[in-house]
Amino acid sequence: MPSQKTIKESKTDVLIIGAGPSGLMCALWLARCGIPCRIIDKRAGNIFAGQADGLQSRSFEIFQSFSEDPFDFVTLDKAWKAANHMMEMSFWSPNEKGTLARKSRIPDFIPGISRFHECVIHQGKIENWLNTSIDQFSEGKINVERPYLPISIKIDETKKEDQDYAVEVLVKKLSDDLAKPEQYGNISNGLFRAFEGDQDKFYADHVSDGNVEDFELIKAKYVLGSDGAHSWVRKQLEIEMQGETTDFIWGVIDMVPITDFPDIRSRCAIHSKDCGSMMVIPRENDLCRLYIQLKEVAREDDGNDGNGTKAKGRIDRSKITPESIVKQAKEIIQPFNLDVTDVSWFTGYQIGQRVATGFQRNNRVFISGDACHTHSPKAGQGMNVSMQDTYNLGFKLALVCKGLAKSDILQTYQLERKKVAHDLIEFDHKFSRLFSRKPMIPNAETLDGSRDAGGVDLDEFHQVYVQGGKFASGTISDYQDSIMVKKTGAKSRLGEESEGDFHPLANKVPVGRRLFSDLVLGHIDYKLVHLADKMPSDGRFRVVIFPGDLHQYKSNWDVLNKFNDVLEAKDSFMKRYTPVNAFQSSVIEILTIHASSRFDIEFHDFPQFTRSVDFKGRTDYWRIFCGAGKAYDGTAVDIYKTFGIDKQAGAMLIVRPDSHVAQVVEFSIDGLKQVDEYFSGFMIDQRNNVLPEKDKSVNDATRFVQPKLGV
Amino acid sequence: MPSQKTIKESKTDVLIIGAGPSGLMCALWLARCGIPCRIIDKRAGNIFAGQADGLQSRSFEIFQSFSEDPFDFVTLDKAWKAANHMMEMSFWSPNEKGTLARKSRIPDFIPGISRFHECVIHQGKIENWLNTSIDQFSEGKINVERPYLPISIKIDETKKEDQDYAVEVLVKKLSDDLAKPEQYGNISNGLFRAFEGDQDKFYADHVSDGNVEDFELIKAKYVLGSDGAHSWVRKQLEIEMQGETTDFIWGVIDMVPITDFPDIRSRCAIHSKDCGSMMVIPRENDLCRLYIQLKEVAREDDGNDGNGTKAKGRIDRSKITPESIVKQAKEIIQPFNLDVTDVSWFTGYQIGQRVATGFQRNNRVFISGDACHTHSPKAGQGMNVSMQDTYNLGFKLALVCKGLAKSDILQTYQLERKKVAHDLIEFDHKFSRLFSRKPMIPNAETLDGSRDAGGVDLDEFHQVYVQGGKFASGTISDYQDSIMVKKTGAKSRLGEESEGDFHPLANKVPVGRRLFSDLVLGHIDYKLVHLADKMPSDGRFRVVIFPGDLHQYKSNWDVLNKFNDVLEAKDSFMKRYTPVNAFQSSVIEILTIHASSRFDIEFHDFPQFTRSVDFKGRTDYWRIFCGAGKAYDGTAVDIYKTFGIDKQAGAMLIVRPDSHVAQVVEFSIDGLKQVDEYFSGFMIDQRNNVLPEKDKSVNDATRFVQPKLGV
Repeated sequence: MPSQKTIKESKTDVLIIGAGPSGLMCALWLARCGIPCRIIDKRAGNIFAGQADGLQSRSFEIFQSFSEDPFDFVTLDKAWKAANHMMEMSFWSPNEKGTLARKSRIPDFIPGISRFHECVIHQGKIENWLNTSIDQFSEGKINVERPYLPISIKIDETKKEDQDYAVEVLVKKLSDDLAKPEQYGNISNGLFRAFEGDQDKFYADHVSDGNVEDFELIKAKYVLGSDGAHSWVRKQLEIEMQGETTDFIWGVIDMVPITDFPDIRSRCAIHSKDCGSMMVIPRENDLCRLYIQLKEVAREDDGNDGNGTKAKGRIDRSKITPESIVKQAKEIIQPFNLDVTDVSWFTGYQIGQRVATGFQRNNRVFISGDACHTHSPKAGQGMNVSMQDTYNLGFKLALVCKGLAKSDILQTYQLERKKVAHDLIEFDHKFSRLFSRKPMIPNAETLDGSRDAGGVDLDEFHQVYVQGGKFASGTISDYQDSIMVKKTGAKSRLGEESEGDFHPLANKVPVGRRLFSDLVLGHIDYKLVHLADKMPSDGRFRVVIFPGDLHQYKSNWDVLNKFNDVLEAKDSFMKRYTPVNAFQSSVIEILTIHASSRFDIEFHDFPQFTRSVDFKGRTDYWRIFCGAGKAYDGTAVDIYKTFGIDKQAGAMLIVRPDSHVAQVVEFSIDGLKQVDEYFSGFMIDQRNNVLPEKDKSVNDATRFVQPKLGV
Repeated sequence: MPSQKTIKESKTDVLIIGAGPSGLMCALWLARCGIPCRIIDKRAGNIFAGQADGLQSRSFEIFQSFSEDPFDFVTLDKAWKAANHMMEMSFWSPNEKGTLARKSRIPDFIPGISRFHECVIHQGKIENWLNTSIDQFSEGKINVERPYLPISIKIDETKKEDQDYAVEVLVKKLSDDLAKPEQYGNISNGLFRAFEGDQDKFYADHVSDGNVEDFELIKAKYVLGSDGAHSWVRKQLEIEMQGETTDFIWGVIDMVPITDFPDIRSRCAIHSKDCGSMMVIPRENDLCRLYIQLKEVAREDDGNDGNGTKAKGRIDRSKITPESIVKQAKEIIQPFNLDVTDVSWFTGYQIGQRVATGFQRNNRVFISGDACHTHSPKAGQGMNVSMQDTYNLGFKLALVCKGLAKSDILQTYQLERKKVAHDLIEFDHKFSRLFSRKPMIPNAETLDGSRDAGGVDLDEFHQVYVQGGKFASGTISDYQDSIMVKKTGAKSRLGEESEGDFHPLANKVPVGRRLFSDLVLGHIDYKLVHLADKMPSDGRFRVVIFPGDLHQYKSNWDVLNKFNDVLEAKDSFMKRYTPVNAFQSSVIEILTIHASSRFDIEFHDFPQFTRSVDFKGRTDYWRIFCGAGKAYDGTAVDIYKTFGIDKQAGAMLIVRPDSHVAQVVEFSIDGLKQVDEYFSGFMIDQRNNVLPEKDKSVNDATRFVQPKLGV
């Protein structure tokens, strides 16, 4: 290795190591918010087949929130169009005669939990669209750099300021032909990634050779390790994984099936009598994925798997082939026929559930995704929870790097996401064991009681699956009380249909969870829109005012008008936390949703602060909404009812940039003071911060969100 | 001009002259169907602002039908996302005191007529997406060539075979800096296009000079002139325009308004007391378009306008400026204030309605769009009817060029579209005159009866607007009986809510009109889909079989099973009109929509012909649908009811590639014979046509539609 003095050095705000969905989601936030960032990956190219494929409702909500641009870009909302929408789950198991039969069919989604539902599409496409969106938002400045190998990482603890470049990472550029996925004939071989235990040798081979130009010392304010289950960053930080592996070995294959099995285009859980279990996941186009329990796989000698836990003997990879997986599938699915064509990917894995003991070091280096939690893939969770990790972290890094918020907020990342990881592991533990074990045959006691003593009760399996759906959707992740979430005044409701912590003023809005989106009507044009679409992921906090029925309760008008004076005052939170010459709603945006008939109030009756005007005098018309009424197409709108807000009392919500509800307060001057207090907890005063004038208007200052006026 | 012997020659199946929306829609069809085609335009670049902006429901349906690709492409369905969805129309006129006041607000769409409604977005964007789609479908082979000037056109009448290159067009490549739109300061000046009377001089200047390399003789089987209101092609064919112009002069301006007028984000028709009328069209982003009646515009001397009709004195273009248009708008909108910023485009026009006496010559050269019909722009019809012209013509040209159908079908183009043009002109005549004249003031008789004697009754204006909406949507265009439309057995119903010609077996499906799309459920996966999305614009005819409730009426199963023998026979229409080695559903596709509970029938119960299998044995699962049932999300589906089809009797529809219903027949062997007869009328026997083997499988033969298996 060359001396550190001779190699080139560079600086960036955030360095991301690992360009899978988790790393890309973080880069997307940073790109959207204009933060300098680099993202490196040791693989030579991105994925064109295989890997994760399940996308849950919450992931679609997140994609939608980054899909504002309506014009010539391919945006993330393509995923919803391109994915296969699975509607149905079928359960197959042996009948009384021991023959495979359809036991039941149920919907494969929970109606009403989100405007999206689970779909499947392969990870490579998701990564493509994430890359495209990052490129678009950053205007070409941020692109994955590959293949780059991280060599060493050092945190300088003497550097204490948020904006210090306190982390040094030495990286090496590899040649392009290294680190490419292996092929099995023409078929992409996922085993390369599924069993990366050999990477220590890979490092040893490549760290010391090479020219000095291949090396670079990157100094960053913050670093993210989103480098997978065998995370290099995690090992450098000496963070342990806790958990266990099992004996169950599964194969996965993507192909086009030729079969007379009637439910091949539904998600199916098949428990065969003696040949193990299989899950069918119908995919985009004609593709289908099968998860197949492999009965006999030779193992290597016992040994440490390099991840801190004892493995029960590693699988002999060479014995897992597309042929061996398909052979097993044919046995499981009999008496139906199964042939395959267009095999595009396969892999094998050993089920295990593990969580990292910590998600960060020194509030400077973070880990996310598979680097924090590993589990079985069949619940379609991996890619989702991994992206949601960094959807949580990314906007916080952006706020800190912009100098808008104190770095204290970064501590909420581990607090909020570690609990989700533990919940995930608990669910997966239960689900995957029930799926991997032999089924109990109905009435089998009367046939051969002894054989089924240890069998899985398929009714229990069914129940676990259904109950898990809500959790799996990702929409109920609940973040604890912290400087960024104030559950003040909220009471916990458990055991009801809607669990969570609820404030009496908005008694159907769980504080700490993502704000459910419902329809509202634009006051100016009476257009139906989803509230979430007016709260895109652009890094801004929102204060959503529900002033009630302004026509019926005139005193509510008075309150709203008084807000104008408070908010326009020099020391209001709107002024304190917004740079002097930035757009007035660059950091915190106010939305107003009233409950009056839109035909009783004119747009210009509303006080000025509710309808901001830009430096040219152009009005932003889409910040005042009617939350109760009937659209021209007959759609009934009542978001007050959906949110449990009284039309006389009203309420106000503070919503974080990731759309999680931070606090519910009273619709009053006093409530406004609580809003002020919330932001005082972690925001930094901007009253002396004059943004540098750029070639364009100062209002366009690039590192601050520019609220696009828009339909 | 150089001698014709020395200039280069080339061949193409279809030459399109003029790359506006009409020409591009034709190119899109040809690209989709793999037909060699060229498209030239005399302008140097395409449009970035202004021009047409209204998109009607039918246009969105057409866009959707070309938007199959779910992956990395920007497809035409972007238009629906990007456009401004106008929900509301407001009528403003003088109140009893003569002060401008809101008279009424109504929905600006007809619920239920389509799954889309009218929206606005500027033509340049539409042209971009059309270009992108053409590029994608043709794999880069078809792109607009510009600036190219057509010099001469000749039809060789001795060439009588459909595949003869019977038309010769001499063209000249211009230099890039010619023919660019004029600018008015920084503002795009639409006057350049609106008054193209000077083009004769332009031709004279540029035809004779230049080098021999600039000229090219293009030999084509068929030619389309979609070259605008001052169509060169139309003049060469000596086709006359019939109609008239009026005295009313209007200005148009695109800008961002700064105003206290409360309905600035609704479509508004404003009749001022003394200052003329104005239409407000809120556009994408913050843009707004104003159509403003100009009171005083100086005119040139009377003279012929070069289009075959006497003009009443041409407008002096230099007097129409953004400033003069805004000045007038301010007067009309008083007592409200109006300022403007971000002016991006303006133009002026004189209202007139004219239709070409013929739409083609010798079944070889066709004209479309503004070349066939001109009218006022305020009903948002121009771009739509122009695209719909070539949506009609394009698939016919493709069928003929492929050698699948006789060129006789091309004669139905003029038959079908000329009537639409006349209906359009009639509607526009009525609407634009009511809009341009002074309003009658309510109760004015009691104030000053004489002043309002000639005023427009605003209630009548309102009525005409509402009644016109259905026509304007483009969804009710009705094509007459011809070789391509058989109204056999259908009876005309007039004066009812749904007008048209109805066959008793499907008594809500108007024969000759586009098939209304309703939801159906995929039998295999119980997924809700719009029927139209399973009938994309790919050049194929469809036979849609409604076999009724197969569970309840067992004899219907028998009929369906008997179909298998008929259709698999060597002389069936499926075999006769499909090339020997092409996919079995390349030319005609069969869809089956039953009315049984999906849970009573298994997929593999259906006869083989309903679920086609490709050369690899892969099944196309998305051709059998359940047309009556309840989706998992609770949506009720009953397309039998929507279409007026009895669940015992059933029915069959023949649907053209443009989704117009060609014929309704009985669900029986006899009905199948009628289907056979329909196709015998114009299709060409393919039983000796073996497609050339390409590098890939013959099934992928590029000039025949490859039915993509797909979700």
